[in-house]
Order: sequence, then structure tokens, then C-alpha cells
Amino acid sequence: MAAATTQKTFDIPKKYKAIVYDKPGTISTKIEELDTPEPGVGEVLVRLTHSGVCHSDMGVMENTWRGLPYLTQAGQVGGHEGVGIVHKLGPGSENGRVKVGDRVGIKWIAYACGACPPCLEGKDGVCFNQKISGYYYPGTFQQYALAPANYVTPIPESLSSEDAAPMLCAGVTTYSALRKSDAKSGQWVVIAGAGGGLGHLACQIGSRGMAMRIIGIDHGSKESLVKECGAEVFLDITKFDDKTIAEEVKKVTGGLGASAVIVCTASNKAYAQALDFLRFGGTLVCVGMPEGDSVPIAKAFPAAMVAKEHNIKGSAVGNQREALEILDMAARGIVKTRLRIEKMENLTQVFMDMSQGKMQGRVVLDLQ
Amino acid sequence: MAAATTQKTFDIPKKYKAIVYDKPGTISTKIEELDTPEPGVGEVLVRLTHSGVCHSDMGVMENTWRGLPYLTQAGQVGGHEGVGIVHKLGPGSENGRVKVGDRVGIKWIAYACGACPPCLEGKDGVCFNQKISGYYYPGTFQQYALAPANYVTPIPESLSSEDAAPMLCAGVTTYSALRKSDAKSGQWVVIAGAGGGLGHLACQIGSRGMAMRIIGIDHGSKESLVKECGAEVFLDITKFDDKTIAEEVKKVTGGLGASAVIVCTASNKAYAQALDFLRFGGTLVCVGMPEGDSVPIAKAFPAAMVAKEHNIKGSAVGNQREALEILDMAARGIVKTRLRIEKMENLTQVFMDMSQGKMQGRVVLDLQ
Amino acid sequence: MAAATTQKTFDIPKKYKAIVYDKPGTISTKIEELDTPEPGVGEVLVRLTHSGVCHSDMGVMENTWRGLPYLTQAGQVGGHEGVGIVHKLGPGSENGRVKVGDRVGIKWIAYACGACPPCLEGKDGVCFNQKISGYYYPGTFQQYALAPANYVTPIPESLSSEDAAPMLCAGVTTYSALRKSDAKSGQWVVIAGAGGGLGHLACQIGSRGMAMRIIGIDHGSKESLVKECGAEVFLDITKFDDKTIAEEVKKVTGGLGASAVIVCTASNKAYAQALDFLRFGGTLVCVGMPEGDSVPIAKAFPAAMVAKEHNIKGSAVGNQREALEILDMAARGIVKTRLRIEKMENLTQVFMDMSQGKMQGRVVLDLQ
Amino acid sequence: MAAATTQKTFDIPKKYKAIVYDKPGTISTKIEELDTPEPGVGEVLVRLTHSGVCHSDMGVMENTWRGLPYLTQAGQVGGHEGVGIVHKLGPGSENGRVKVGDRVGIKWIAYACGACPPCLEGKDGVCFNQKISGYYYPGTFQQYALAPANYVTPIPESLSSEDAAPMLCAGVTTYSALRKSDAKSGQWVVIAGAGGGLGHLACQIGSRGMAMRIIGIDHGSKESLVKECGAEVFLDITKFDDKTIAEEVKKVTGGLGASAVIVCTASNKAYAQALDFLRFGGTLVCVGMPEGDSVPIAKAFPAAMVAKEHNIKGSAVGNQREALEILDMAARGIVKTRLRIEKMENLTQVFMDMSQGKMQGRVVLDLQ
Repeated sequence: MAAATTQKTFDIPKKYKAIVYDKPGTISTKIEELDTPEPGVGEVLVRLTHSGVCHSDMGVMENTWRGLPYLTQAGQVGGHEGVGIVHKLGPGSENGRVKVGDRVGIKWIAYACGACPPCLEGKDGVCFNQKISGYYYPGTFQQYALAPANYVTPIPESLSSEDAAPMLCAGVTTYSALRKSDAKSGQWVVIAGAGGGLGHLACQIGSRGMAMRIIGIDHGSKESLVKECGAEVFLDITKFDDKTIAEEVKKVTGGLGASAVIVCTASNKAYAQALDFLRFGGTLVCVGMPEGDSVPIAKAFPAAMVAKEHNIKGSAVGNQREALEILDMAARGIVKTRLRIEKMENLTQVFMDMSQGKMQGRVVLDLQ
Repeated sequence: MAAATTQKTFDIPKKYKAIVYDKPGTISTKIEELDTPEPGVGEVLVRLTHSGVCHSDMGVMENTWRGLPYLTQAGQVGGHEGVGIVHKLGPGSENGRVKVGDRVGIKWIAYACGACPPCLEGKDGVCFNQKISGYYYPGTFQQYALAPANYVTPIPESLSSEDAAPMLCAGVTTYSALRKSDAKSGQWVVIAGAGGGLGHLACQIGSRGMAMRIIGIDHGSKESLVKECGAEVFLDITKFDDKTIAEEVKKVTGGLGASAVIVCTASNKAYAQALDFLRFGGTLVCVGMPEGDSVPIAKAFPAAMVAKEHNIKGSAVGNQREALEILDMAARGIVKTRLRIEKMENLTQVFMDMSQGKMQGRVVLDLQ
Repeated sequence: MAAATTQKTFDIPKKYKAIVYDKPGTISTKIEELDTPEPGVGEVLVRLTHSGVCHSDMGVMENTWRGLPYLTQAGQVGGHEGVGIVHKLGPGSENGRVKVGDRVGIKWIAYACGACPPCLEGKDGVCFNQKISGYYYPGTFQQYALAPANYVTPIPESLSSEDAAPMLCAGVTTYSALRKSDAKSGQWVVIAGAGGGLGHLACQIGSRGMAMRIIGIDHGSKESLVKECGAEVFLDITKFDDKTIAEEVKKVTGGLGASAVIVCTASNKAYAQALDFLRFGGTLVCVGMPEGDSVPIAKAFPAAMVAKEHNIKGSAVGNQREALEILDMAARGIVKTRLRIEKMENLTQVFMDMSQGKMQGRVVLDLQ
Repeated sequence: MAAATTQKTFDIPKKYKAIVYDKPGTISTKIEELDTPEPGVGEVLVRLTHSGVCHSDMGVMENTWRGLPYLTQAGQVGGHEGVGIVHKLGPGSENGRVKVGDRVGIKWIAYACGACPPCLEGKDGVCFNQKISGYYYPGTFQQYALAPANYVTPIPESLSSEDAAPMLCAGVTTYSALRKSDAKSGQWVVIAGAGGGLGHLACQIGSRGMAMRIIGIDHGSKESLVKECGAEVFLDITKFDDKTIAEEVKKVTGGLGASAVIVCTASNKAYAQALDFLRFGGTLVCVGMPEGDSVPIAKAFPAAMVAKEHNIKGSAVGNQREALEILDMAARGIVKTRLRIEKMENLTQVFMDMSQGKMQGRVVLDLQ
């Protein structure tokens, strides 16, 4: 037919640039040329333009993260906060929910089966058949990536790709944790590690996005950031001991304690303090995953938890619905990551800085 | 007036018999004669006929229970599972919900204010103004007790007083824990300590009362009891180690793990095992309160809890609504305590047996 | 002891001024002198300084409200949004939660028993033993009122009494309805009657207090008010028919429809439109109570509700916990009623204006 | 390799037998020979052995069901409760969750996209891209059918195919409705139409599967069936009028009313009665879809719903998770459909009987 709409098409090169972990166990990355893959059944080929760099990526590269069962192998492409444009559809994706030209995201859970018990309960993050982007599945530190047509995450038109990228892991993770906390709008929620990559998003989402009252805890240097992110109260962790900081939280909350604490930092010390911040029936949500030897949450005493009806919840990365919701919040300007753009060449340096605690805000790689 | 309905009245003696802790810190009780009190504003005077004896009573008497803030004083009347008849109304109770002649129960929470934040959320067990029966408030090991007209628990007509008594603490505590577990009918729930005073009720309530599938764990000698109480599967704790018992739970539950574990025993070892029994998103409910030094739940590792989205909940005694619900289940024959009746004189011996682990089933004192 | 704190005391006159309905069935009120009552067991005497005037008061006075079982009698003191100071405690209230000198509120549910099935589920609004302020129980259009010590509502210090008064019925009613809607922060909620006494509060509470996205529907003259109250979108009811307004809601909500509709107006027409505004699984919350003959919600067709999994919920006045929460929101400046202060003498005129639809905002009576 | 496991394979004929609606708008079916289709991308070919016959099939065939947007076309293969064996995998299904030889079911929702807003909330029944088995998508009244590899429903090994078939629509629909009712174990639930195809399953699931207390309402001839299915109380609809039946429900439930009513019959009269059965805060769940002109639920009066905080919920067919749960209940012997097996040839007669109200129990077609 003469009047047929023209299907958008893209020139796809034979080779493209990817960053690989060339020496897993150390901080080392290398740019390589890889063959552009063909999308298989149910897949799409995404031309990635941006990828966030997450602390978990470093754990995968360094093989320091005890939560993962296997050692990372040389040649692994890392990254799990990718945004790009669909350039090609694999077989079976022709009439699906994404079209060539759509802008989409790839998340930590790169693929969830949709049919196992966790998936049927909306718990993508613990899907039994999950594939993890950047760990035993090629990640988003590259210019082209394959992804399931049915599970890529559409990006709202009004949201820039660099702002979208960190929502795909840091954003959805903190948002999901806040939802799971069962704290209601108007209630007090403590964010431990409030100035960090996860924490500063939690402050924004909790305050502006969910109308909670936020107490941010971090080092004094983060005070202005934390307050700008919507925390009503900032507590400088260096100015209190375990006892006095709990007393301060009690005081701020009118004597009751907070309805929830979201531990966004990977610090056993933060977990040790957290239960004392809670009011009766309150909930500690675990998000940050301490490295090194496993240490139980220090005050998770059965008798004490019974006496105050306290709860502890582990929260994984959040599901696809939550990803869409947090992207919508970002598109509405409610949450915005403090970030800077870096070139692919600089990823090793970025990890160096991260390792030395010199990182300010999140880094998003420009993959163009 | 000639046509007035005759208000039931009772002869109330000046003195009555009560069992007091005469040497707190040791196992020792003594029967004393006390003056019958007058019900104050909003109170009723209850002629108690039965009182259950709970393991917590021993902890209060011996001052071994670390959950309580003050040392028990000599002269304390213990007990918190009392059933009896209202004999007199105090001022302001005349037009209330109970009448002279009504049969009512007195629970661990002898008084809840109804107006503090926990009460307004239906969490009587953590009421800020609570009075605890048998601890700094006269308990139910006596023939007469005062109780708030608005907070005594009406006993269903078809339920005997001896069967009602243990529902007022053991029954409502386990029922509340099962509700808080968020396990649904048809799902697998592990009862740790399934043959104990709490556990054998949890098996009955969970299976017959809530249509859950129960796995009972206890010593082999309890197998027939636990199965009669409705457990589909019994696991003899002595035949497994920590690893193999978790594998067995997995196997029984089709590879998934249980939706919830209710730890009804006061054993740190039971808590240490419990998280490994859970499927993704499952919940460990703390009921049993270990004595001695506080020990954190051994595998409450943040990273592991995140990875499986596990939950831990502390559950206190349950509220008044739950007490009415479990009494209704008991009246319908769904749950029945294994118990024997003892005279008041024998309470010291009962505690001796309890202390030496010789107790079989629950004891209910006959106070008549 | 020389240093004892002095108990605050107040001079209490023998007589005081009250407004009574002298000719129920008509719009007519009269100021009378009444004897100051003595607080009974469990009661307090409150010196009221302010009372909101609610549309329901007019229904009670005029005997036009079909929801109420009995005709109002001459001499009834109306009003149910009262704020004042506790001047005296009755027997049994001496050690309670309120002291002489405390500022407290009296709500539509003047007394809830705390022990019936609805109370035990936190549904004070349907308490089986409730007493309704201003209907068969003396209301708040008077200078002194008795109230249960355990059920008066403490007023936050930073909130003025005139701002507190309307929270006690209009505020808590709309807040409770928004909670029951199950709409989450970030979701779209339609407020039907958005510029009215209830609606303009719903817009503020929903948007600023609960982070929902509000679509307000009302007559065009209310547009600026509704938008100031936080509605993102205003729809002028006069510019659409039933079909086009539903299409407009769909359009605004990205094609899905709203997660909830709160019908704050007493209009059968508003109810007839409401179901068409909803997305799949959405909830219509009934708040406004149409007068005259009972008319079913026009499109509550079983087959249609099944096909879209729609829900309808009736929401009564909210409970004591919700009252405290909305007062806290008001104290924080999140919600503020458009009101004007009137003298007691002007109440008849206020009702006249209300009857003729001339009322702008809420009236609060100055009872000083 | 010598030791390779042998992939099961099946001989698949070129042609097979299917029942088509040859004259939609009338009761008429015809057996035709069709070409066996090839499974496409993500599909499997199922050799169906059994299909339940549901009242909805008749509505589709006769074009009497107003809930559906388009007229059924001649040649449509009906049916939506199909069970059979996977005989062949399409491209992209090779490593999926089903293998050749697996026994699986096909439901009313033959395909749900897994990615639209309802799917992301677990509401398959209102999936925006759903395909309905037996309506504009070939159904299960045939020997071979295509189905999505990711959405067929695995059948538990211990459950016969004829018993599994009706679970796939009637079973999951009633189960989902009972879950949505929010009634808890131990609470009273009324099943309206308790002796019908849906109702007799609701009685079994509610009583044995979910530990609810069931009141069954139907014609007197159904009394023994309804009681065998677990109803504690049977009410003969012919012996009461609208007022006295509500009074009887009140009486049975101790004066309170039922926590929920599930209307399983397609009768406007049943809906008209239902709200009066409910206690405060109770829920009417709509399942049966009345034919003919749409009629609002007769007593869905806003003011009455507010006064009693009543709820109405529409419940569609239930999701995949619920399907697995109800199949598990069936495999455990908790729920069993009253059914008889019929040959394909007899389907027209089955519909004739159904049309004349002569149907006793459900019919399952033998497709072998």
C-alpha cells in the first residue's frame, strides 16, 4: 500500500564498544570491541546511550559481594542501569509492547520469567529464573545489549536518559523499600545513610513522593544535601553514640520513635542502631548489604521484638510495576539523582574513587 | 417497684484465699487470706473459679524474665488466665457491657487504656498504660479479683471455664501470631516447639481454625500429640541437624520452604534454625522469649534477608478482638488445651514440675 | 509539701448559654440559659470556645436526614465539631489521659464504647453504643458540654481552636475516606464536589498530606479554590455531560482512569457518574449522603463491576486515631479550612444561608 | 551421545476434531475436522483430553452475554476449561517452564500479556491484551489447541484431568472471590446460589479450604448437596421473603450479619437481597453476571453504605497464582466438582439442558 506508515529503522554496526571486567577480583576495566548480537526469540536489541554505575557493580567486579553464588569471570560486561533505544526486534516481538525506536531501560533483574512463584506474587527481585544484568549476563556498560521485549522498562518521554538511568536500580530499590515499610503518609521514617546514592533518593521519594516525614542520618558533611532532598531533620552520626542517637530520634518523633527505618547503607553499625529508633510496631527495612563476614542484626533479640512488636523486612530490588511508578515520579520532577556524566574510558577511575569513598553523587556513563 | 426485674446478687465474703509469691526469686508460693476489695470506678469484682498456669508466671515469680523492668515483690498474687463470675459492679459500670452474673476472663493485659497510640491501632499488648495481671497488679491465682468493666473478656456460654482459661493467654497469643504471619489458608507453616503449651494450640488453630498446612517440630516423644493437634508433618528435632532439618522442610513443602515459622519455644537454637525454613518472602514470627542473656537471631543477616525478602515479626499477646475470636474457636471445638486441674495448694509443686521440664500439658487451678 | 504543683482550677458558673433547636423540622434556633452539669463517672466538663457548623447539623435540625432513626426533639442542642478547655473532671477521671486545663475536641461520635465488635476493629463510626453529638445527646453549640474522659480528642498546641474545629468532622471524614480508597501516593484520585466543605479539605489532604494526584470536579466558580487546595486538574461540571466528563478523566489520567473517586457531595448525579471515572480495580468511596428517597448508585451493575473489578465502599466518620492524624496534619499546616467566625446569635442565619446554597466555606461559631 | 535422555515425542495428526458454533445466536454446535496448527513463537501445542462446559460458553454461543463487545462469529471453537498434554513446543519455548509431555490447563484468559498495568498488579482477568479462550480465540472444545508456553497452567500429578478442568474457570473464579471478600477464617460468609456450578465449589473452598463458616442459600432441592459441600447452615430461598431471609442470616450469625456475601448466581434478585445480609464493614462480592438489561444493585444506596461501612467488589476470573492454588486444593481433595463426563457429540444437548435449567452439576467433555 502506498500510504503505509514507514517502520523506523536504524543502521546497526557489526562491531560496537563494551567495557569488560578484564581482571575480576581487582578494580580493572577495559574497553573492547564486540560483535553486535542478533536479537533472539522474544528479544530486542537496545542501543544503550547511558548507564548508571552502582556500588553493586563494584562488588561484582571485585568478587567481594557474598550475596552472589559464583565468581565473576573475565570478559563480563557489567552494569545494570541502562537506558537506550530499541533498534531491532527479534522473532515474536513484532506485535509486542515495544517498537523499534522506543526508549527503554534495563534493570538489575534483566529478565524475570513471569511464571514462577515469586513472579506470580509480583516479586520479580527473587524470580527463580532471573538473569542479572552485568553478572553472568551481559550488562549495560556497552553500546548494544539484548533484552526481553516483555520486560524492558519504557521510559517516560519527559525524562532525560541520564536522569532515568539511576531510577532503574537505586530509584526502584529505595522506592520499593519505602512501600514495604508500611509507613503511612504523615509518619516518621528514618533514612540511615541519607546522603548516599540510595539514601538521597529515599529522602526525596519518601518526603515529596509519599508524604512521609523524613529523618536523615549521615555524616555532617551531607547535611545540606539531605535537607535539600526533603529530610525535615538531619542527625549527624558523628555527634551521637548509639544511645544518644536513639534518644534524639525519640525526641524528634514526639517521644514515640519512628514508624520505619530504611537502612540504605551497607554498614553493620547502622543495622545495630536501627531497631532502637522504632516505635511500637515499627519496621526496619534492610536495603544495604554489608560486605565481609555475615553479621546478624545486633539487637534482633526475640524477646525485645516481641515486647515492642517490631518487624524486620528484607527488601530486594523492586518489581516492574514499581519501576514504572518511580520513573513516573522522576518524570514529574519529584525525585532527581545527584549525578555527573562520565565517559566510558573513565570507568576504572570511577570505581577507584568509589572504592576510596571519594564518590560524590552517582555517575552515569555516556555510551554514545 | 413491684414489677422490677430482680438483679442477681451474690454473697461476698469479707476474706478470701489468694496465692502469693512469698519469696520472689525462688519457686515458692503460699496461700493467704486477703480482704475482699471493693470495685472502684469502672471496675467489677470477679469471683474467679479457674486460672491457667503459664510459663511466664514462673518467670515473674523467679525474677528470671529479662523482659520485665522491675523485680517482683513479696506478696504479689500471680496468674493471668483467670475465669470467673462478675459478683459486683463498681460505680460507673451499672449500664455497661457486663452484668452481675456474667462469666468473664482476665488476661495478661489486665487493663489497656484504649486511648494511647498502640490501643488506637488495636495493639493492646503494647498499650502504654497497661497493667499486667500477676505482675505489679494482683493476678488470677486468687478467688476474687478486680478488673475493668470495659476490658474483661466475655466467655461463650458453651465453653467450660477450665477450657476457657488457657485461651486467655496461650490461645490468644498463638492465634495472634498466626494472623500476623500473613500466611494464607493452604500455605505451609512451621510450628517450632509444636508439642509445648503454646505449640500444641498453634497446631490446632493453624490447621483446623485457619486451614493452614502445619509442620510441627519437637522432640520425638511429642509426635502423636502434635499429629492429633492437626500437624500434617512431624519432624523430630533430635533426628536432624540445622542443615538437614531445613532440607527436610524444603522437601515437605515441594522445594519452596514454608510461608511462615512460628517459634513457640523460648529457645535461641530454634530461632537460629527458623530463617532457613522459609520460602522467599516468608515470615518468622517471634513468640517464645528466651531467658538469660539476650542473643540476636542467629541468621538475621541483612544481605540474606534482602536476597530472599524474608521478614521477622515480634508478636505480643494479641488484642481483645483476637481473644474473642479464639474463645469462639474454642467454643466451636476447634481448639482444646491438653490440661489437668490442680488445687490451689499444689501450685508450688506445679512450678517445680515446670522448672524441671516434667510438665505434660497445661495446668489449670481450681479456685473454688 | 511546699513545692507541690498547683492543680489548675476554673470558676464554673451555675448557668451558661446554649443554642437549642426550638422548632425541629424547620430552620430555627434559640439561645437559652442552661444549668451547668456536673461531670459523671468517667466524664469531663468542657468549656467549649468554638464549634464548627456542618451540613449534617441542618439535616438533624430539619429532620430531613433519612439516615437517622428518630425525629429530633425540641430543646436539642446541636453541633459536633467542638473545641474547648477541660474545666472539671468527674469521678474516675482523676488519673486519666486528660487534665483540667487541657484543650480537647468533641466529635460527631461523642462517645464510642471501645468494646463492641466495630470498636474492636477500629470502626468507632459504627460503634453499636455510640452517642452522637447534637442528636439525642447534647452537642457543641453551647458553652459547656460533658464528654467521656477517654474519648475526647486532644488538640495539638500549635493549632488554633477555630482551625481545629472543622477537622473534628469534615477533616477526619475526608481523611478516613481517602485512606479507605486504597489509592496510593502518586495515583490519581477524583474529588467530586471538590469546592465544598468536605471536598476542599479532601483536595488538600489528598495532595499535600498523602501525595496523591487530585482531579477536582465542581462548578466553574470553584476553580481557583480547588486549585489552591492542591488539585492538579479542575473539571467544570457544567461544561461536560456524563459521557464527556468520564472521557476527560480518562484523558487526564493517561487513558487509564482514576484509582479512586471520593464523592464528597450529597448528589445522586455525582454518584451516577463516578464509576465511569475509575480505572480497572478502582474504588468509589461514598461520603456524601443524598437526602430524599434512597436511590441506588446508578451504574452499580454487577456485570460491569466484575468486568472492571470495580469496588464501592461506604465510609463513615473515621475513628479516633484518624482524628489525631488529621489534627496533626492541620497543626503542620498541610490542611486548613476556609472558614469564617460567627457569633452564637447568628446560627439561624447561617443555616438559612446554607439552605439557600449561599454558604462560602465553613462557619465556626465563637462560643466565648 | 549414548547416555542422552530421550526427549518425549508424540505423533501429531494432520487433522483433528473440533466443535464449532455453526449458528451463533442459537444453541447449535457441530463437529468439524480442522488442520492441526503449528505452534508459533512462544507457543505450545496442547492435545486436549478434557474440557469443562461453563454457562459462559452458552452466553458466548447465543450472543446473549452483554459483557462482551462483539458478536460471536460462525466457526468459533468454544470452551475455556481445557486440560491436555503438551505435544509440541514452538520456537522460543524450548528452555521454558513446560516440556513436551507435561499436562497443562487452558483458562478463560487464554493469554495475558504480563506487562500491562493490570498484569503488573496481578490482575490477569482484566489484562488489556487478554485473549479469551472460546471467544475470538480458539477454545478448548477441540482436540488440539495452541497456548502460550508461559501462561498455560500446570496440573498437579495427583489430580485427574476431569477434576482439574472445572477448576480452571469455576474453581479459580470462586476462590478468587472468596479471597477478595476479605472475610477471615472463622467468619460467616453467605453463598448465594450455593447449589449451582460456582456456588457448590464456593461452599467447599470457603469451608474446607479457607476455614470460613458458610451459609448456603438456594432452592430447597439443593439442601443436601450444599450441606455436603460444607455449609453449616442452609437457607431455602423459597421459604423466605427479602426481609425474613435477612433476619434469618442475622439470627444465624449471632445478630451481627455475615462478613461477606458471594453472589454466585446471575440473578438480580440475589443481588437485591445481598447487602442486607452483611454486618458492619461487610463485603458483597459480585461474581454472577445477570443477563438482559443492566440493573443496578437494588440497595446500593450511598447513605446506607456509609452508615454501615459496607463494601461492594466486582471479582473477575482470578489470576494464574490463584489457579495454581485452587488446583493444589483440588489435588489435596479439599474441593471436588460434581460432574459427569459427556462425549463431544453431545455438546448441543448439554447446552439444551443447561438452557432449560435441567443441568445437574457440571459437564466435562471427553475429547479423546
